[in-house]
Amino acid sequence: MKPGVRVLAVSGGVGGAKLALGLARVLPPAELAVLVNTGDDFTHLGLRICADLDTVLYTLAGVVNTTQGWGRADESFGFMDELRRQGGPDWFLLGDRDLVLHVERSRRLAAGETLTQIMADLAYRFGLTTRLLPMTDAPVATLLDTSVGQLEFQHYFVRLRSIPEVQRLHYAGAAQARPSDDLLTLLRSRTLETIILCPSNPYLSIDPILAVPGMRAALRAAAVPIVAVSPLVGGRAVKGPTTKIMQELGIEISSLAIASHYAGLIDGLLVDESDARTELTGSVAKEFSKLGIVVDTARTLMSTLDDRRRLAEVALNFAKRLRPTESRTAPKSWSGSV
Amino acid sequence: MKPGVRVLAVSGGVGGAKLALGLARVLPPAELAVLVNTGDDFTHLGLRICADLDTVLYTLAGVVNTTQGWGRADESFGFMDELRRQGGPDWFLLGDRDLVLHVERSRRLAAGETLTQIMADLAYRFGLTTRLLPMTDAPVATLLDTSVGQLEFQHYFVRLRSIPEVQRLHYAGAAQARPSDDLLTLLRSRTLETIILCPSNPYLSIDPILAVPGMRAALRAAAVPIVAVSPLVGGRAVKGPTTKIMQELGIEISSLAIASHYAGLIDGLLVDESDARTELTGSVAKEFSKLGIVVDTARTLMSTLDDRRRLAEVALNFAKRLRPTESRTAPKSWSGSV
Repeated sequence: MKPGVRVLAVSGGVGGAKLALGLARVLPPAELAVLVNTGDDFTHLGLRICADLDTVLYTLAGVVNTTQGWGRADESFGFMDELRRQGGPDWFLLGDRDLVLHVERSRRLAAGETLTQIMADLAYRFGLTTRLLPMTDAPVATLLDTSVGQLEFQHYFVRLRSIPEVQRLHYAGAAQARPSDDLLTLLRSRTLETIILCPSNPYLSIDPILAVPGMRAALRAAAVPIVAVSPLVGGRAVKGPTTKIMQELGIEISSLAIASHYAGLIDGLLVDESDARTELTGSVAKEFSKLGIVVDTARTLMSTLDDRRRLAEVALNFAKRLRPTESRTAPKSWSGSV
Repeated sequence: MKPGVRVLAVSGGVGGAKLALGLARVLPPAELAVLVNTGDDFTHLGLRICADLDTVLYTLAGVVNTTQGWGRADESFGFMDELRRQGGPDWFLLGDRDLVLHVERSRRLAAGETLTQIMADLAYRFGLTTRLLPMTDAPVATLLDTSVGQLEFQHYFVRLRSIPEVQRLHYAGAAQARPSDDLLTLLRSRTLETIILCPSNPYLSIDPILAVPGMRAALRAAAVPIVAVSPLVGGRAVKGPTTKIMQELGIEISSLAIASHYAGLIDGLLVDESDARTELTGSVAKEFSKLGIVVDTARTLMSTLDDRRRLAEVALNFAKRLRPTESRTAPKSWSGSV
């Protein structure tokens, strides 16, 4: 009999994939599933590109370019060179090996297969037993209202290097989306013990997932401890535009702000030890308590594979000490259509 | 003012592209257009691949792999290596640079552009002023009834290396196709002086073109000399399965058989000098005469660029000595729907 999934990681791209890899190394890989943001997906050159899913896939498969955290190691760029020579758009880098995923996925989507089915097959091709679950099979696009107009995520993040000021975020298509049957089945399974929100960007990577109607309720109704790892280290994000966006949206850059953001969903927040001294004492500690969120600290910076494994173990142990606030016996709020 | 097209070459892939290149070198390139077979086109990995159009494009652009006669020189195969590693179909070689055409063409076709428009843009990207005209914008597939069942052309030719015995040829979709407006406009233009059927496979490369309803009549109604260059040299085809297919279809392998095949369409046939002695004397010469086809001889083997230029000049001069049998004043038979 196949072992059941015990841990569900919820992830965006590079940062989340690091913790997912740590979890895949400290757990039997088949006992881990990763719920991945698809709000960064876009259609480019007619190909459907799923940036976060592919980053998690390549990371878990051990073929990722570890220097940049995305794309393939041992990659070539003949396609890109030629596209540039022909005057095509060259701002989004597509390696020759990487292209295989995009071509195959586009073909299957056009043939009517679901993204969940397709990613399961692609993961199998890479020898993964960890399941990769797109947040939904419906197309959802994270759109950013910015100082230079509304932008699709990759145009904001890659083409414009996160430079425009962000005024508002939308998750286009989210209202028509729903969690996949595979995800809902997993969340109802008796083997599931823990849900871990990886230290991905809460606004750009995790919020699109939570914007899928029924998703929050389904995660809560699993009635297992939900732990988030804060993306802040020393009062700022390790990488990417998290803190810049928080500033632009007028959000205080603090672990408490992260906790408030996830309030009602998570049971515990793992904060970097560098932030613990300033944030977990006195009145601030009381605020966490009011939110019903238990806080613990750890070294959350993941430079090495050992860092990833260690943080995975800490997060799993932290979750074991928590009790979910909602019982498993009230699934009505999320099952069925929303 | 743009110069008008004086010469229309009618071509399949590798062999035809050689003469097209010769023509593009002895004529101002903008005065040449190439009408290309699309019966070899197929959809592979979800990408629309137009083998003959791309071979002609790469050949005229000077980027073709001259050893094999198709594909790109200076090519890399990262995509192919990875596809193979993932267990994908590896029988059809797709270079990384080559992929740019297929991806771009597939995207534009899906967006509703015509193949004629797309190929015009792609040719422009490669700096070509010679026009590449697909035989039609409708999908047509050359299907072969063979000893191992019905096969699409590329499956027969590439995957099964032309080994199965051919019993019959079909051009699926041809009945619903029509020549493009651009081609019809060109055939009606006053600048056109000559049509040259390149030494491509008459059955696999030229017949699909002629199978498009209205095509034969449109070519004749241009009322310019039509010259074919025989694909036979020394009683056999230089390359590819032409003679094998002629044998299997019970067709005599001779220049006379080629002439009979094109009878009613061409005014002149250029035969290789190695075939002239045996075929153009006595009773055989009378047969050509009965078909209304003037025969001339030349060295038709094109090993070097000089060979291509020389044969192009010979074919153009041959055409100048001929008069078309049908006048330009009877276009009714081919205009409009068929």
